[in-house]
Amino acid sequence: MVTIKTIEALNAAVDAGFDAQVALTADVVRFPSTRGNEHTAQDFMANQMRRRGLSVDRFLVDLDEIRHLPGFSPVHVNYENAWNVVGTYRAEAPKGRSLILNGHIDVVPTGPLDMWTTPPFEPRVEGDWLYGRGGGDMKAGQVACLAALDAIGRAGFKPTADVIVQSVVEEECTGNGALACLARGYRADAVLIPEPLHDCLIRAQLGVIWFEVAVRGVPVHASDATTGANAIDAAYLVMQGLRGLEARWNERKADYPHYDHVDHPINLNVGRIEGGDWASSVPAWCRFEVRVAIYPEQSIPAAKREIEETILETARGSAFLRNSPPEVTYHGFEAEGYVLSDAEEPVGVLAEAHRAVFGSDLEEVSSTATTDARFFGLYGGMPALVYGPVADSIHGFDERVNLTSLRKVTKAMTLFIADWCGLDPAT
Amino acid sequence: MVTIKTIEALNAAVDAGFDAQVALTADVVRFPSTRGNEHTAQDFMANQMRRRGLSVDRFLVDLDEIRHLPGFSPVHVNYENAWNVVGTYRAEAPKGRSLILNGHIDVVPTGPLDMWTTPPFEPRVEGDWLYGRGGGDMKAGQVACLAALDAIGRAGFKPTADVIVQSVVEEECTGNGALACLARGYRADAVLIPEPLHDCLIRAQLGVIWFEVAVRGVPVHASDATTGANAIDAAYLVMQGLRGLEARWNERKADYPHYDHVDHPINLNVGRIEGGDWASSVPAWCRFEVRVAIYPEQSIPAAKREIEETILETARGSAFLRNSPPEVTYHGFEAEGYVLSDAEEPVGVLAEAHRAVFGSDLEEVSSTATTDARFFGLYGGMPALVYGPVADSIHGFDERVNLTSLRKVTKAMTLFIADWCGLDPAT
Repeated sequence: MVTIKTIEALNAAVDAGFDAQVALTADVVRFPSTRGNEHTAQDFMANQMRRRGLSVDRFLVDLDEIRHLPGFSPVHVNYENAWNVVGTYRAEAPKGRSLILNGHIDVVPTGPLDMWTTPPFEPRVEGDWLYGRGGGDMKAGQVACLAALDAIGRAGFKPTADVIVQSVVEEECTGNGALACLARGYRADAVLIPEPLHDCLIRAQLGVIWFEVAVRGVPVHASDATTGANAIDAAYLVMQGLRGLEARWNERKADYPHYDHVDHPINLNVGRIEGGDWASSVPAWCRFEVRVAIYPEQSIPAAKREIEETILETARGSAFLRNSPPEVTYHGFEAEGYVLSDAEEPVGVLAEAHRAVFGSDLEEVSSTATTDARFFGLYGGMPALVYGPVADSIHGFDERVNLTSLRKVTKAMTLFIADWCGLDPAT
Repeated sequence: MVTIKTIEALNAAVDAGFDAQVALTADVVRFPSTRGNEHTAQDFMANQMRRRGLSVDRFLVDLDEIRHLPGFSPVHVNYENAWNVVGTYRAEAPKGRSLILNGHIDVVPTGPLDMWTTPPFEPRVEGDWLYGRGGGDMKAGQVACLAALDAIGRAGFKPTADVIVQSVVEEECTGNGALACLARGYRADAVLIPEPLHDCLIRAQLGVIWFEVAVRGVPVHASDATTGANAIDAAYLVMQGLRGLEARWNERKADYPHYDHVDHPINLNVGRIEGGDWASSVPAWCRFEVRVAIYPEQSIPAAKREIEETILETARGSAFLRNSPPEVTYHGFEAEGYVLSDAEEPVGVLAEAHRAVFGSDLEEVSSTATTDARFFGLYGGMPALVYGPVADSIHGFDERVNLTSLRKVTKAMTLFIADWCGLDPAT
């Protein structure tokens, strides 16, 4: 239990450091840490950790060390620049409860630059918002971890339990960065992941599967198109079949207690498409990439079977596809859903910290996305709390994070650390 | 009029050179002369022409010299390797009718290599066929031009009029290679283009327009997909609208005398598509490339207006697209249709040559494709005859040209040259 006086001191310390925190967030946003390009941002994070006296462990994600583990997602890219960075504060005589603060450094692609009001990797503050790709998802949260530790030091304290700060790669496509941290042996009594949760806590999160569908066509000269088979047209037929699967899965939501009240829990997204080589040739090939959610109780193998059966059934309805069935491959997310359980203790501490700052109860949500929390909760036996600031347009244009919310969330995180880990006067 | 004895001598000369002709065709097929990569094949063609004593004119297609001309098609690639090669035989004392033999060196992309039985640029002869990309469309025809001149020489003759052999680029996308030959001043009393016409003559050919449609979306995180707008889905909606246009244009075929009997004259082909960046982001963009045919009497500006109106009308039917209308741009073919007319004289000569070889009448067809003939006919005042061998799977896999047909067509071409240009004994 943190005293009112300590709460006030910590809040004041967050306020005192907030301008620097926003500036540091902007510095991190400036790194274009899309997939395969996270390493320079990670070097920066490592330096920030070192500067704070954390012991830094910078290691490459090694597929051979994780591919046999539950939760692993297959990939078809190389990991030569996929560096994780972990900075650990080790308490001298640990007596509180240890904590992992986890965040991901990778951001999703910007999309066409001309649809951004200002360039995505040139952060700017306007009104109560910080704009930039990754600002919300989730560099503001990552920097908040460091800012919370800064505030504790500034207020004249130090945690009485170990605090492990993880900056991982691959959250947006596989989660293999977080899995590699688990494989490396990092454990704690609880995990906090400050994803942009609109000041709420995730109680349940869906699983996510990525798959690619490859459709073949019969290429002929366009002047004779009716004698060929257009792979792009055929791909759309398959997509329509998959929309049927999405509808059926949404209809089943009543079977899943954490999602029965959610309007449209299962979202199937065709996120990329590519096909054909030449306007005047009937295209011989088309590929598209799909993201679909699954319920926490749905198994990945069963979901894959349904996906494949749906595609085959759609193919059977087409004279051409019947004899040339689409191929499904999986790379990227094979993420199970996760429901936060056996977590009364850390949730209670977070709820109290939240109430102390926001003056209201901590709201719990069922997320229609996935987060790295699943690794800690499902495969590491650690309760993993996902809680973070208000952000808009994550994965969209003009992504932004709200600064008032960020300040409060940072305060709540600081109080959470204080209460969970315990504080001693810094000597 | 060519005597029986000369016919026999020329036929025998074609037969005597046919193995070498097939070998030379294979040599040319071996060059992967897709767009932007024609130059090495063109160097080879220039050498072949030089070896035959033709005066060679190798020149780069210069956009500044042709962009103001009728028939020009806009491009968005550079022409730094777009070399045309023209080899001219100049008769000492011209008394016959001059001739342009025109062919294109560019070939369309291969598509996925694993769908070819053997590699596309490793030509092979099997049975009565030569396989390889570009063998049919139209390297067999190009080499037949040289082989016909070879046969005339081998039989002890030389033409009594100028013969201009053109190997051009860009036939498969714009026709700007042929247009550049016209701009350079090449003229003759007739033009023969040995495209793979299944031993027939083109009487009418359609026009072709290429256009690209760019659709924007509203990108959001896939977990929240229903609040965004998927550009790939929206693109499909636009395609469906364009299929309606294709159907309407086909319904109008009764208005066009050369096409009223053709089953499905107007083919609209979506030949390429590309969209989105990330499986878990609702895609912000999608682009697709379309080829559509127009009737000879249809004007390009009017056809473009119909295309644009169709797209806008489709957009109006969508809550999202209404406020974010797709953009249409044109690059590649803006080809008018062409009907061979005022050509009784060369058609008569070709029909006679054909009959002498095939023992049957020359069949005339209405092509649902375009060829470079339009430049000579529409903008150069020269009757342009398109006539050539049997080929399969042009623009498809395992493209092939039939050798029996090629031999006969080469004989007919040789007789055509003999009759049209006249022959003198070689001295």
